[in-house]
Amino acid sequence: MTGTEKAAEHRPEGSPESLIKVSALREGTVIDHLVAGTALKVLSVLGMRFDGAVMVGLNLDSRKAGRKDIIKIERRELTPAEVARIALISPRATFSIIRDFKVVRKFTPELPDVVEGLVRCPNPSCISNATWVASKFTVLRADPLRVRCRYCERSLKKEEIELL
Amino acid sequence: MTGTEKAAEHRPEGSPESLIKVSALREGTVIDHLVAGTALKVLSVLGMRFDGAVMVGLNLDSRKAGRKDIIKIERRELTPAEVARIALISPRATFSIIRDFKVVRKFTPELPDVVEGLVRCPNPSCISNATWVASKFTVLRADPLRVRCRYCERSLKKEEIELL
Repeated sequence: MTGTEKAAEHRPEGSPESLIKVSALREGTVIDHLVAGTALKVLSVLGMRFDGAVMVGLNLDSRKAGRKDIIKIERRELTPAEVARIALISPRATFSIIRDFKVVRKFTPELPDVVEGLVRCPNPSCISNATWVASKFTVLRADPLRVRCRYCERSLKKEEIELL
Repeated sequence: MTGTEKAAEHRPEGSPESLIKVSALREGTVIDHLVAGTALKVLSVLGMRFDGAVMVGLNLDSRKAGRKDIIKIERRELTPAEVARIALISPRATFSIIRDFKVVRKFTPELPDVVEGLVRCPNPSCISNATWVASKFTVLRADPLRVRCRYCERSLKKEEIELL
């Protein structure tokens, strides 16, 4: 199993710290305070196509929430639709937009009263599952999330929600 | 979309740098020099169950390989079977075992000549797809990976390989 193996008495450049050191973000987005365990779902919402570097922290210690996830994306700012999807996954996430190494904007999105085209209705006979109809849900509560389909009135808890 | 929003003139604790700062790894494993784009597949090989923090870097600049991924896992050392699976995904990955903030062992795994129970044979009539038979492949070449089924002789390129 072991090919090349080295002792580690002298590693001036290779401490655990330096192995994980990353440069500061010049331009991009930091999504902080994600509910622990949701970062990979958020990455999939973002389509997993990234030109620049992406750093993901899972299960990190957080003063606010015990454990949290964090994502830092180089050279990318998010669309309002992407922010809304992420807010559905993790309602207390904070977004920081970085330009030239500075936080130029920081915000916590508020969920809109109605979300359109973002959530799949699990009711197979609901009209919103027809390809020509955009799903539409009323947000009943943000955290824990609860939504209700505007077509068939089915109400969904957070764990029942499947994003489109 | 924007709930709370703050200007960022004074952020002594909140520079982009500090937003992503993570503590050094006391105990755990660093998997470095992963082929860019493979880190999330590696996480899924590891079962996505983590007690401690996990840091993932995607698409990072690398002097050796242009772009690379890196994974740092707190409080976990990998089994030989996990290391072998990761070597199949990313043959030049390096593994560093950290204890008490020090690299106590660093290695690049060599693929064995034969891998057992790790790769699914895509030939539907191959006997290795029977539940009571463990798949067995000869490693013809490590990078780019090429393997051949010991039962039906089908030869697979890297992109055709599906891990079990």
